[in-house]
Amino acid sequence: MVYKKISLIGTSTESFDDAADDAIDRAEDTLENVYWAEVQEFGVEVKNAPEREYQAEVEIAFELAE
Amino acid sequence: MVYKKISLIGTSTESFDDAADDAIDRAEDTLENVYWAEVQEFGVEVKNAPEREYQAEVEIAFELAE
Amino acid sequence: MVYKKISLIGTSTESFDDAADDAIDRAEDTLENVYWAEVQEFGVEVKNAPEREYQAEVEIAFELAE
Amino acid sequence: MVYKKISLIGTSTESFDDAADDAIDRAEDTLENVYWAEVQEFGVEVKNAPEREYQAEVEIAFELAE
Amino acid sequence: MVYKKISLIGTSTESFDDAADDAIDRAEDTLENVYWAEVQEFGVEVKNAPEREYQAEVEIAFELAE
Amino acid sequence: MVYKKISLIGTSTESFDDAADDAIDRAEDTLENVYWAEVQEFGVEVKNAPEREYQAEVEIAFELAE
Amino acid sequence: MVYKKISLIGTSTESFDDAADDAIDRAEDTLENVYWAEVQEFGVEVKNAPEREYQAEVEIAFELAE
Amino acid sequence: MVYKKISLIGTSTESFDDAADDAIDRAEDTLENVYWAEVQEFGVEVKNAPEREYQAEVEIAFELAE
Amino acid sequence: MVYKKISLIGTSTESFDDAADDAIDRAEDTLENVYWAEVQEFGVEVKNAPEREYQAEVEIAFELAE
Amino acid sequence: MVYKKISLIGTSTESFDDAADDAIDRAEDTLENVYWAEVQEFGVEVKNAPEREYQAEVEIAFELAE
Amino acid sequence: MVYKKISLIGTSTESFDDAADDAIDRAEDTLENVYWAEVQEFGVEVKNAPEREYQAEVEIAFELAE
Amino acid sequence: MVYKKISLIGTSTESFDDAADDAIDRAEDTLENVYWAEVQEFGVEVKNAPEREYQAEVEIAFELAE
Repeated sequence: MVYKKISLIGTSTESFDDAADDAIDRAEDTLENVYWAEVQEFGVEVKNAPEREYQAEVEIAFELAE
Repeated sequence: MVYKKISLIGTSTESFDDAADDAIDRAEDTLENVYWAEVQEFGVEVKNAPEREYQAEVEIAFELAE
Repeated sequence: MVYKKISLIGTSTESFDDAADDAIDRAEDTLENVYWAEVQEFGVEVKNAPEREYQAEVEIAFELAE
Repeated sequence: MVYKKISLIGTSTESFDDAADDAIDRAEDTLENVYWAEVQEFGVEVKNAPEREYQAEVEIAFELAE
Repeated sequence: MVYKKISLIGTSTESFDDAADDAIDRAEDTLENVYWAEVQEFGVEVKNAPEREYQAEVEIAFELAE
Repeated sequence: MVYKKISLIGTSTESFDDAADDAIDRAEDTLENVYWAEVQEFGVEVKNAPEREYQAEVEIAFELAE
Repeated sequence: MVYKKISLIGTSTESFDDAADDAIDRAEDTLENVYWAEVQEFGVEVKNAPEREYQAEVEIAFELAE
Repeated sequence: MVYKKISLIGTSTESFDDAADDAIDRAEDTLENVYWAEVQEFGVEVKNAPEREYQAEVEIAFELAE
Repeated sequence: MVYKKISLIGTSTESFDDAADDAIDRAEDTLENVYWAEVQEFGVEVKNAPEREYQAEVEIAFELAE
Repeated sequence: MVYKKISLIGTSTESFDDAADDAIDRAEDTLENVYWAEVQEFGVEVKNAPEREYQAEVEIAFELAE
Repeated sequence: MVYKKISLIGTSTESFDDAADDAIDRAEDTLENVYWAEVQEFGVEVKNAPEREYQAEVEIAFELAE
Repeated sequence: MVYKKISLIGTSTESFDDAADDAIDRAEDTLENVYWAEVQEFGVEVKNAPEREYQAEVEIAFELAE
């Protein structure tokens, strides 16, 4: 059994939780066996976004198909 | 005055805030003088939990009785 | 174009999100061109606060006026 | 010449060496020019595995075809 | 569900794997629900040991009884 | 909006700047919406290269298509 | 032979050395075989203490009885 | 003698060296006794800049006037 | 309530304790509500100082006036 | 009593343990009072070696003769 | 095969690249089999140098003669 | 101008300051142009020393003769 980890940054105008969910949702849309996620960093985009954008950089681990 | 720090991982199906509170609640159930807590890491269990489980690893500092 | 980064710690009795917002709000009160914020650490004050106080240490980047 | 690095977690019921090899083997099955690997973390799964499972998180660098 | 993490250093005159196992064995002797372990550091004692002593500092996570 | 980050190592016989550009150029050849890059490490290959080869390990963030 | 590490924060109104000693003294009051200590962090409490309080966070390693 | 450190991010469309110089130039425009600078991070803005913008986050130490 | 953190480097020809105090003293001369300090690094200047100069880089947190 | 630490990288085609031993063996060939070793990093050379070469970067501490 | 790593700081009044080259040049003057170099830190000396001095702290790995 | 950095661990039965001085003294006994020192870690040996032994791991930078 081998896992792969990828790094996604989810975004939300609501909260850090939603930003992390956003990244995990995206991972589950395209990957079969997502096992866990680890938050790497939280940030907030202020200037280049119409309203405050919460960002969660998340490492996502999924099982590679044999 | 000497403090001790222990490391707990709280869990919640709602949010990272709740997961951190879960760890602090537990500490306060059994320890008298909890002073502060420091988040070490946030993670999300996806596969081995019935629904997404938010996890907060938290270092908790309390005063040792003399 | 030169940015400066400062380090603020916002507080909230509600959540980590609110604590981060508290720091960014304060920055925007006194600074013109806030661009982004990076969370450095989340903590919780338990003993020296009337109720649990969520704290977010946040680095805030703003553009220096020419 | 450009290299890409990916992050794999190999597993073994024998040893950390085997877990690292497991990740590198997998990489070599699907990638042409694997150059080197760097261990990021060793862990052991105890509860959710039938017997102790050694895990090696490994960054693997390979050359991208032109 | 709350986990606690403790830090043990196992030793072995054979290998790093055995040193890590030594720490996990000890944890399982006295704790009911050991879930996983994370290697923090490997070292070797040369002078103060009769023969080379491999050491594995390991963080061990177990579930706290309700 | 979700970003993905990948890790590339660019090379150059001229300078660290060129090595970083090499990695970003490669990313832009195959990816549509490259947003930013973060240098992770600079190194120099001396022995296994005909002349000194500057290397820049760079994390590259791009927007995932919806 | 298995060691355990615990994290204590000693305090002193005199110096960082005394703060570290304070933590080690406390450890030796209750533990049999303290082997070594590693300083994790030095800090100073200014506002919430009657006079400046030096603090030393120290990891203390002791041998577990068989 | 007391030094203060501030964190500036210089930018350049040419190179990382120029971006670092940009930050130090700015510091010297407004501060009397700049002593040294330490690079914290190099990055490249790709999407939100008309051409690639090299960025150097630099900590700058200067002596405080008595 | 919002805190700000600044980074000062105190110096002393006597000891690390004095160097840290030097930085905190300076902060208290110009700031109203200094709460705590965290040592970031200790160093010693040997060549460019008439006698050994102990240096303490210290982050100092103070409350911002409303 | 003063110790010095040096950094060696041992290699082995067998295992990480052997690679660490290789570095310590070398140190003991030329140095009198080797006290302990700390693993800094494990890696695997794949492309530039005839077969997989395990590498262990190890810091080695020895006592300096008076 | 055993490598040793040493830490050199090269300097240049021109650029970070030149400062890194300066350190590697020096290593190659006195060492036979320099294999690679890893940049640890870039800094700039401003006050104690006649003009800005770029500095590159570089770890250099070379093969030890058998 | 090229500097070299070496890592020494000084010891003292008195204080961390003395332990750091011990390492710098030793460096100055054998090296001509010691410039500065950076503390890497403070520790205390308890069991294997007749009385508490303070230890300071210190990186020492000196100028290489041309």
